[in-house]
Amino acid sequence: MPSSGITTPMIRAAFLAATTLCALAPQAQAQESGERPTPAAIVASAPAGDWRAIDPAELLVMELAQGLRGEERRVVIQLLPPPFARGWVENIRTLARAHWWDGTSVYRVVDNFVAQWGDGEDKQRIAKPLPEGLRLVPESDYVTAVQPGPEDGRDFVLVPERADVVVNRWLDSYAITAFVAGWPVGLDDRGGRTAWPVHCYGTVGVARDLSPNTGTGAELYAVIGHAPRPLDRNIAVVGRVIAGIEHLATLPRGTGEAGVYANPAERVPILSVRLGDEPPATQQPRFEYLATDSDSFARYVHLRANRRDTFYQVPAGGVDVCGVSVPVRRVAAD
Amino acid sequence: MPSSGITTPMIRAAFLAATTLCALAPQAQAQESGERPTPAAIVASAPAGDWRAIDPAELLVMELAQGLRGEERRVVIQLLPPPFARGWVENIRTLARAHWWDGTSVYRVVDNFVAQWGDGEDKQRIAKPLPEGLRLVPESDYVTAVQPGPEDGRDFVLVPERADVVVNRWLDSYAITAFVAGWPVGLDDRGGRTAWPVHCYGTVGVARDLSPNTGTGAELYAVIGHAPRPLDRNIAVVGRVIAGIEHLATLPRGTGEAGVYANPAERVPILSVRLGDEPPATQQPRFEYLATDSDSFARYVHLRANRRDTFYQVPAGGVDVCGVSVPVRRVAAD
Repeated sequence: MPSSGITTPMIRAAFLAATTLCALAPQAQAQESGERPTPAAIVASAPAGDWRAIDPAELLVMELAQGLRGEERRVVIQLLPPPFARGWVENIRTLARAHWWDGTSVYRVVDNFVAQWGDGEDKQRIAKPLPEGLRLVPESDYVTAVQPGPEDGRDFVLVPERADVVVNRWLDSYAITAFVAGWPVGLDDRGGRTAWPVHCYGTVGVARDLSPNTGTGAELYAVIGHAPRPLDRNIAVVGRVIAGIEHLATLPRGTGEAGVYANPAERVPILSVRLGDEPPATQQPRFEYLATDSDSFARYVHLRANRRDTFYQVPAGGVDVCGVSVPVRRVAAD
Repeated sequence: MPSSGITTPMIRAAFLAATTLCALAPQAQAQESGERPTPAAIVASAPAGDWRAIDPAELLVMELAQGLRGEERRVVIQLLPPPFARGWVENIRTLARAHWWDGTSVYRVVDNFVAQWGDGEDKQRIAKPLPEGLRLVPESDYVTAVQPGPEDGRDFVLVPERADVVVNRWLDSYAITAFVAGWPVGLDDRGGRTAWPVHCYGTVGVARDLSPNTGTGAELYAVIGHAPRPLDRNIAVVGRVIAGIEHLATLPRGTGEAGVYANPAERVPILSVRLGDEPPATQQPRFEYLATDSDSFARYVHLRANRRDTFYQVPAGGVDVCGVSVPVRRVAAD
């Protein structure tokens, strides 16, 4: 039971509903009262069948120039799967196949917000020509239509032929939230029946100018601070950093306007950006994520909201969707 | 109106209540529909009377060794005011007056979590003797009693003789939340009637061993990622970084157990930590915060939850308490 404050019956009811929506399988609760596992222990003990391989074709590998300590800096980004943000994701594939980012830079870093890369802004642009074939994507694609579930317990599905189940949803401060096919999403079932990927730590999005510009995907950013959820539905989310976020999060903060590096010499060179399936198979990046429709993930979410392991005396009784990072692990190549 | 999803009348009611609790003065709404100000514009135009001076005696100034680029690294921490966390805050004053942290280090940095400093952990300890006079503080002091308001519109007060008003509270994923005397807090009015400071980006807390140990205050951490709210009520919050958080957030992440620097040579030396009132008056740090019971702050919170300025087409309709950082500004010395 949550021990946090409830001040009106109305809010109390919603709060309990929210925590109930997080709650789950009886065996998880039994184990909790017994061994009091940590979320990490649940992940470590998840059966192999609860993990899903990430297709290397859905990964981007970005190599930054070496750091001041001589360290290599590789950032691995997982692109959003269908049906989300397809126009931008396809543009990004086109840009990566053209090796367009090679020689560009990380040029903007704002503390507790984002690190941004590409050709730069305004006067600093090198005006590198964009490859052919990029699409203009409309603002309406910030969200994706969902359809009512087939009355088998699923509230919504994204596309009928896929088992993208939306059932364990709960309210956070910004929206009804859920995990779908490994990704945190917001949900709107008033009229529009839409879902949208949300901004959490590590989320990758498409920098843009003012509306109606939606960005091509050439200028990208990664979140390096507290989840900037007001950006949700206002900008295209296209992926997330699954390895090497620290190489972006530790970069010096920009002192120019809006956090751009005031001196172009401060920019961090990008050596290359490649799709994960461009190298030979033995050199392709191999990762798995914990299936968000698995029992293991349900137990993991429950414990994220109700920690009672050794360090925690008072479980929170709730969690925001960005407080539940989807577990991802590197696996050995075939 | 929020356009995010509402799935049951119960949750819908609470969601609207939450956003209504964030909503405010008619003039703010009028201005919003007209000029559509940004939160930053509200802060910039706040009248002088809405700002409160921070007593230099409530500040800690930590000087780290120069960075690899030769940059000075000064971190300024504001300590929690009464009645919160007094035992630990007094211990911290004792440690600072003894210059105890001089020659210690930042020894643990975990991506999207914390940077931690003091004498180090386990084998790496230099076992610097603690000054006399430190108190053992009980776990019960993780929370602070609140009292019913004087029926003048205030729900609660912290101490009757002070105007620490709790009125603009709202539900986030973890608790009923509010701002009290410049600080984000959680609230519990079920039996306990308690309030507690919450963990946001930049929050400073007291590292500790397992319960019933509560830490002395000698080992401290600052949050450098998404708000780790499950720590609330499980560990002592004692302050927040108001300047220089980037000097902690950009440190290399530790690769040893739990993010401790595996090699002691990686530790970041702390040159000194001083209370803000130790230097002569002309050299004391001068800061102000935007009063959280001011109209300006209410308008600022409202816009944080409902951005409609140039970049935002779809206002979120809500905000979590850590998505509303309390504005702080440096002011010229007297």
